[in-house]
Amino acid sequence: MTTSEAERSAMRRALALAATPGVPLGPNPRVGCVLLAPDGTTVAEGFHRGAGSPHAEVDALARAGAAARGATAVVTLEPCNHTGRTGPCSEALLAAGVSRVVFAQADANPVARGGGHRLRQAGVEVVGGLLADQARAVNEVWTFAVTSGRPFVTWKFATTLDGRSAAADGTSRWVSSRAARLDTHRLRALCDTMLVGTNTVEVDDPALTVRDEADEPLDVQPLRAVMGLRDLAPDRRVLDDRAETVHLRTRDPHEALAALFARDRQHVFLEGGPTLARAFLTAGLVDEVVTYVAPMLLGAGASAVADLGIGTIADAVHLDVSDVTVLPGDDGEDTNVRLTMTPGPTPGRTSSPTPSPTPRRT
Amino acid sequence: MTTSEAERSAMRRALALAATPGVPLGPNPRVGCVLLAPDGTTVAEGFHRGAGSPHAEVDALARAGAAARGATAVVTLEPCNHTGRTGPCSEALLAAGVSRVVFAQADANPVARGGGHRLRQAGVEVVGGLLADQARAVNEVWTFAVTSGRPFVTWKFATTLDGRSAAADGTSRWVSSRAARLDTHRLRALCDTMLVGTNTVEVDDPALTVRDEADEPLDVQPLRAVMGLRDLAPDRRVLDDRAETVHLRTRDPHEALAALFARDRQHVFLEGGPTLARAFLTAGLVDEVVTYVAPMLLGAGASAVADLGIGTIADAVHLDVSDVTVLPGDDGEDTNVRLTMTPGPTPGRTSSPTPSPTPRRT
Ligand SMILES: NC(=O)c1ccc[n+]([C@@H]2O[C@H](COP(=O)([O-])OP(=O)(O)OC[C@H]3O[C@@H](n4cnc5c(N)ncnc54)[C@H](OP(=O)(O)O)[C@@H]3O)[C@@H](O)[C@H]2O)c1
Ligand SMILES: NC(=O)c1ccc[n+]([C@@H]2O[C@H](COP(=O)([O-])OP(=O)(O)OC[C@H]3O[C@@H](n4cnc5c(N)ncnc54)[C@H](OP(=O)(O)O)[C@@H]3O)[C@@H](O)[C@H]2O)c1
Repeated sequence: MTTSEAERSAMRRALALAATPGVPLGPNPRVGCVLLAPDGTTVAEGFHRGAGSPHAEVDALARAGAAARGATAVVTLEPCNHTGRTGPCSEALLAAGVSRVVFAQADANPVARGGGHRLRQAGVEVVGGLLADQARAVNEVWTFAVTSGRPFVTWKFATTLDGRSAAADGTSRWVSSRAARLDTHRLRALCDTMLVGTNTVEVDDPALTVRDEADEPLDVQPLRAVMGLRDLAPDRRVLDDRAETVHLRTRDPHEALAALFARDRQHVFLEGGPTLARAFLTAGLVDEVVTYVAPMLLGAGASAVADLGIGTIADAVHLDVSDVTVLPGDDGEDTNVRLTMTPGPTPGRTSSPTPSPTPRRT
Repeated sequence: MTTSEAERSAMRRALALAATPGVPLGPNPRVGCVLLAPDGTTVAEGFHRGAGSPHAEVDALARAGAAARGATAVVTLEPCNHTGRTGPCSEALLAAGVSRVVFAQADANPVARGGGHRLRQAGVEVVGGLLADQARAVNEVWTFAVTSGRPFVTWKFATTLDGRSAAADGTSRWVSSRAARLDTHRLRALCDTMLVGTNTVEVDDPALTVRDEADEPLDVQPLRAVMGLRDLAPDRRVLDDRAETVHLRTRDPHEALAALFARDRQHVFLEGGPTLARAFLTAGLVDEVVTYVAPMLLGAGASAVADLGIGTIADAVHLDVSDVTVLPGDDGEDTNVRLTMTPGPTPGRTSSPTPSPTPRRT
């Protein structure tokens, strides 16, 4: 089945609505919807503002009122077929008398999907897949999480040009430039979970909050997760009330990610230390690597990356570079270079994406 | 004293002539010259083609013949005042009856300089400094070498993202991508000397030649220099007849550079190993660092950079990044990243630029 120029143009508008900046997301996908009258003019628009608020289709239907009857709903994600905090959008569209639905990305969520099928059964014309790639790009991490049944993991580490994270005496303040540290906070803010090992908490006592340029914590903070068996001393900063904190009493990365996924977490920012990073890397549970390279030589000191048990060059972990960004230093500081990479397939080590039965879209 | 628009335009042309591609340089600076008639029209042009061939001024005068009388010579470098393989240009200009000389860069060579003074004494109008920065840029390494009395040193090393040059079992074929290795050959070709330590010759047996994309040696090869006290086994490839080779029986970087400078060497490409690189770095004798970063993790294995005796982060060697270039890999190879850097001032360690009395411009 084909789509009209009015529908294609409406889809581009719906994609822009989906990507409305500043929408508090929570675990839900970003979705936009445009209702078109039979003559191709716009009846109403809507988008989803985060968990607990109406889905994009319902938002648009509410604005359209009676004018929705006989309209075409152009929506960036297949309408859901599932009752979470709100009812199924498929039923809402049917009740409003919409006669045709054009969607972009098929719903990847095993629980919510089937809306297209339900609508077709009820006699509505349904076309899927229009600008699907763009729609997936808007919800990359959500799509990954609902299809793999675990959060997406970004591992960040900072290193000198010669692979050190600290000098021989343990000093490391600062390897990265201020620009790199600010950039790290920007990336932290895009995730919903900060993850470190118990030893980093013990040694460094980091706050693990996301802060702005003035070093003030942002209003919305990711969950702070600390992984490992030992107890955390009660005076640790990670236990203050600036953000929620969870102690994952396990050394198994799969178990830790499952626990986080059960808490609706979709994007973990793994900030070390080297021991924890190694555990995730060797389990094939690192999906993205962000490295800040400081143009500095130490010649000795702690290695930024732990011994990975690699004996020969053929077993090296290769990373695909997707972005290289130069971060100029101000006030005489070093220029740092940020590399963003994706691990290649690790021979013999595959992550096991077990789709979870927990509803992702509420 | 001011210059005319015709002279400024002639200087831009002279700079382009100086930078004529493919000119075999040897130890001489690149120089261009334009002779202008009193009405501002061009009488003749010339440029220097390398040691033993006429200097730019003499080249232009020969083309002008009698028309040089009363002309203005616009030249990118102060005319020399020194008899090398050819006579002084100052005398040639006087003999030809040139009445005015406009030059860009003052001659930095302690032996050859003084041409401007000689011409003025003989009654010629002399203006110096027009577009001097552009002229210096054409001869950056030459200017460095004649003013410091030693060759410019570029240290190149390849490293994984975690600072390794080989895996735990010693294998390192290949850390860098083919694109990075080709790029290295391109940089080698811009230098006049390849330098490694005796141990790299013993362990790796490198050819140290500059090769093209088809792995064929270029016609013009840099000098191969091996530094260290021990003898070289006669079967080493560095001793073949593909290029000239010198064994510098010293461990003192100053001494090695003095010996190379005495052989008219101006640009050393230091390719390791780590021991030799450390010696040059701690002596403050590295002027440029070129690092190829391979997006690969090994977690263990030989460090790309040797222990520099640095104990604390405040003593780290900081490098100024002047360029970051992404080298995409083909055929599924890694994308590599090249960083070009300049060492910052090393506290307490200064190189001692002792201008040498050896003539630089012959
Ligand atoms: N370069 C960087 O970007 C960076 C970032 C963060 C930290 N660091 C540095 O790294 C150092 C700490 O390094 P680290 O590696 O010791 O700290 P870590 O990785 O934060 O913590 C290691 C601890 O995590 C627990 N753990 C959880 N899962 C594990 C598993 N699968 N295998 C083993 N242990 C597991 C263990 O403690 P239990 O006994 O509690 O189970 C282990 O001792 C600090 O000095 C810090 O400054 C550097
Ligand atoms: N990552 C890279 O880009 C790269 C590049 C080149 C080599 N490599 C690797 O590096 C390894 C060799 O490393 P290396 O450091 O042993 O080799 P090296 O630096 O080439 O040679 C070291 C030798 O140079 C002599 N030497 C000269 N000046 C010296 C000084 N100031 N101080 C100390 N020794 C001096 C000494 O031998 P004498 O006893 O003869 O004086 C010393 O044993 C090889 O495995 C090679 O594959 C890596």
